[in-house]
Amino acid sequence: MSETAAPVAVAWLEDRPGVRLLDQTRLPGEELYLELEDAESVAEAIRSLRVRGAPAIGVAAAMGLVVGLAGSGAGSSEAEYYDRMEALLAGTRPTGRNLAWALRRMRVAREGGARRATAANGRQPPPWAAQPPLRVLFDEAEAIRREDAELCDRIGRFGLEVIPEEGAAVLTHCNAGALATAGVGTALAPLYRAHEAGMPLRVWSCETRPLLQGARLTAWELTRAGVDVTVVADSMAGSLMAAGEVDLVIVGADAVAANGDVVNKIGTYGLAVLARHHGIPFYVAAPRSTFDPTLASGRDVPIEERDGAEVAEIAGTRVAADRAGVRNRAFDVTPEQLVTALVTDAGVLRPPYGPAIHRLLQEEDE
Amino acid sequence: MSETAAPVAVAWLEDRPGVRLLDQTRLPGEELYLELEDAESVAEAIRSLRVRGAPAIGVAAAMGLVVGLAGSGAGSSEAEYYDRMEALLAGTRPTGRNLAWALRRMRVAREGGARRATAANGRQPPPWAAQPPLRVLFDEAEAIRREDAELCDRIGRFGLEVIPEEGAAVLTHCNAGALATAGVGTALAPLYRAHEAGMPLRVWSCETRPLLQGARLTAWELTRAGVDVTVVADSMAGSLMAAGEVDLVIVGADAVAANGDVVNKIGTYGLAVLARHHGIPFYVAAPRSTFDPTLASGRDVPIEERDGAEVAEIAGTRVAADRAGVRNRAFDVTPEQLVTALVTDAGVLRPPYGPAIHRLLQEEDE
Repeated sequence: MSETAAPVAVAWLEDRPGVRLLDQTRLPGEELYLELEDAESVAEAIRSLRVRGAPAIGVAAAMGLVVGLAGSGAGSSEAEYYDRMEALLAGTRPTGRNLAWALRRMRVAREGGARRATAANGRQPPPWAAQPPLRVLFDEAEAIRREDAELCDRIGRFGLEVIPEEGAAVLTHCNAGALATAGVGTALAPLYRAHEAGMPLRVWSCETRPLLQGARLTAWELTRAGVDVTVVADSMAGSLMAAGEVDLVIVGADAVAANGDVVNKIGTYGLAVLARHHGIPFYVAAPRSTFDPTLASGRDVPIEERDGAEVAEIAGTRVAADRAGVRNRAFDVTPEQLVTALVTDAGVLRPPYGPAIHRLLQEEDE
Repeated sequence: MSETAAPVAVAWLEDRPGVRLLDQTRLPGEELYLELEDAESVAEAIRSLRVRGAPAIGVAAAMGLVVGLAGSGAGSSEAEYYDRMEALLAGTRPTGRNLAWALRRMRVAREGGARRATAANGRQPPPWAAQPPLRVLFDEAEAIRREDAELCDRIGRFGLEVIPEEGAAVLTHCNAGALATAGVGTALAPLYRAHEAGMPLRVWSCETRPLLQGARLTAWELTRAGVDVTVVADSMAGSLMAAGEVDLVIVGADAVAANGDVVNKIGTYGLAVLARHHGIPFYVAAPRSTFDPTLASGRDVPIEERDGAEVAEIAGTRVAADRAGVRNRAFDVTPEQLVTALVTDAGVLRPPYGPAIHRLLQEEDE
C-alpha cells in the first residue's frame, strides 16, 4: 500500500481489544478518534453515522464483532453470544450491502470456511487476538479491511492514467474518499496518487446537498492531505465548466449496471450532462464489487427516497415553506453513454462497456 | 390588474403616513407585516433584507422617501432634509440599479418634471398625502409602484402562451415572484395566471443554494396562493427531467444582453443545459427594463462574487472544511442559444433575439 496523507477511517487498537474509529459526525470541526472496546459501541457508531460509506461500514462491523468476542472472554465458543453480537451489528444499517456481506464472511470463517490463504498474507495479529479461537476471526476481519484498502490502492494506480501528467482541475461530488473506505477511497484514490506524485492538482468539491458530504468530508480529507480544494454550491458546476475551469470530473458509484449505467449520489447525472455539453471527460471510479451483473441497466434500480426533512430543515429549523412538498431522491442514474471511462481495481474500462464489464466479472470468478 | 392570491411585498398605509412591508427575513415561518412610519425604518428594512428583489427595493425606497417627508412635517420644502432622506435610502444597497433609478425619478418629480400624465392615471392619494407639496411625490412613488405591478401583470398575460393549456409541470429557480416586485413577479407571473385560470400546475422549486430563495420564498408564496409546489435540492433537477417530470423551465433574469444572453442566479445555466439535453423548453421572464442594450453579450457582464461564508457556513456554523477554499458566484450566464423564448411585458420574443430585442427597446423609446 502506498504511503498517503489520507486519514484512516477505521483501524485496530494494538494494546487491547478495540477499534479506532474517526468520528465523522465531528468533521470538519474536530478530528476525533474514538477507541471502541466492545461491539455495542461499534454498533452505536455505525448507527449514528460516526462511520459511513458502505465499505468502511462493512469493515467496522467485522472488526466490531472480533472486539465484542474478545472482550466477552467467550471467544467464538459461545454460539449464542456470537449470534447476538452479529444481529446487533447487522441491525445498525439494514440496507447496507457491504455490512451484510462482511458479517456473512465472518460467519463462514467462524464455521471453518475461512479463506486462510488470503488471511495468511496479512499482518500478524496483536497479542490480544493471537490465540484461537479468536485468531481465525481476527484474520478474517483483517482480510476484509486489507482487501478494501488494496482495492482503493489499485483504483488509485489505474486511475492515474486518466489524469493529465501536467496536472488538472478536477471536479468531484459527494465523498468517495478515505472516509468511506478502509483505504484511500475510490474517486479520490487517483487524486491522492497524483498529489503524491507531485502533479499539480486543483479540486472543486461540490458541497453535495442535502447532507453536504462534499463540503464536510471531501474538502476535509483532501485539505488534510495538502491538496488544493475549493468548495462550491452544486449549482456552480456549470459556470466553472463554461469558464474552462474544469479539466475532468471523477465520482464514485453506489452501483454499476451490466451495461455501464452508474447509480450514484443525486446530482451526479447533472454533472455528467454538463461535462458532455462542455466536452469534459467524466470518469466513475468503483471496485468490481460495485458492479452488479443482475442489473441490465440503470433503469432497473429502485431509487431510494429519503426523508424530506434533510432538504426542508437546516440545523433543526424548517427552511422550506410549511405547506410545500419536498422530494429527496438519494441517487440518480447516469447512462453509460455519458461516462468516458470506468476506473476499476482491475483497470480502466472504455466503451463499449457491456463486453468490458462482462470480462471484468468473469476474471473475478476465475 | 388581475385579482391574485399572491402576497403583496410593499403597500401604502391608508390612515397615516407609512409603508406596509412584508418582512421577508421571517419567511417562511411567519407572515409578518411591518408598518413603517419613517424613512429610517424603511432604510433599515432594505438594508437588512426585510424587502428584497431589485424592483421591490426601488418601490420601497420611493415610498419610504414620501413617508419620511410626510412624517417630518417639512413636506418637500426643505431641501436639506430631502437630501438627507434620499442619501439614507440610496446608501442601503449601493449596487441595486432599481434603487438609484427610483430615487432619481423622485428627484425629477420634486424638481417639477413629474410625469403627471402617468401619475394621473393612478389612485387618489390617501388624505395624508393629498396636499401639495407632498402630493407630487406621492403620485410619483405610486406611479413607480403601479408601473412595476403592471409590468408583472403583462408578463403574466403574455407568458400564459408558453404554458400548455392542459397544464404543466414547471421547474423554477430562485425567487422571481411577488416577493421580489410590487406585483405578481416575473417568472412566477404566468404561473399565477395559469393557476387563476384553473389550469393544473405542478411547480418544482429548486431550493437555490446558498441563500435558499427557492425553498424559503418561492415555495412560500406559491403554496400561499394554493399552487402545488415541491421543493428539491438544486442537484435533483436532472433526475426529474430524465424521469419526464418537467414540462418546462421558467426563470427570471438580473440582466438580458442585446443578443439575448441571460444573467441570472447561479445554477440557471446548468438548468438550461439540462433542459436542452432533455428537449424541454427553457423560458426567461423579464420586463424591458432588465434588457441592457449596452451589453453586446453575456460575456461582457462582470459576475459578482459573494462572501464564501454563505456557502461555507450554515446557521452560523462552519460546515466546509476550514482550510478549503470557497467560491460563491452569485450569477451565471446562459447563452441565448439555450433560451427557447424571452417572456417580456411587451410580448414573447423568439430567436433570433438580436433583432427582436432591438425592436423591443426601440418601441420603448418611441
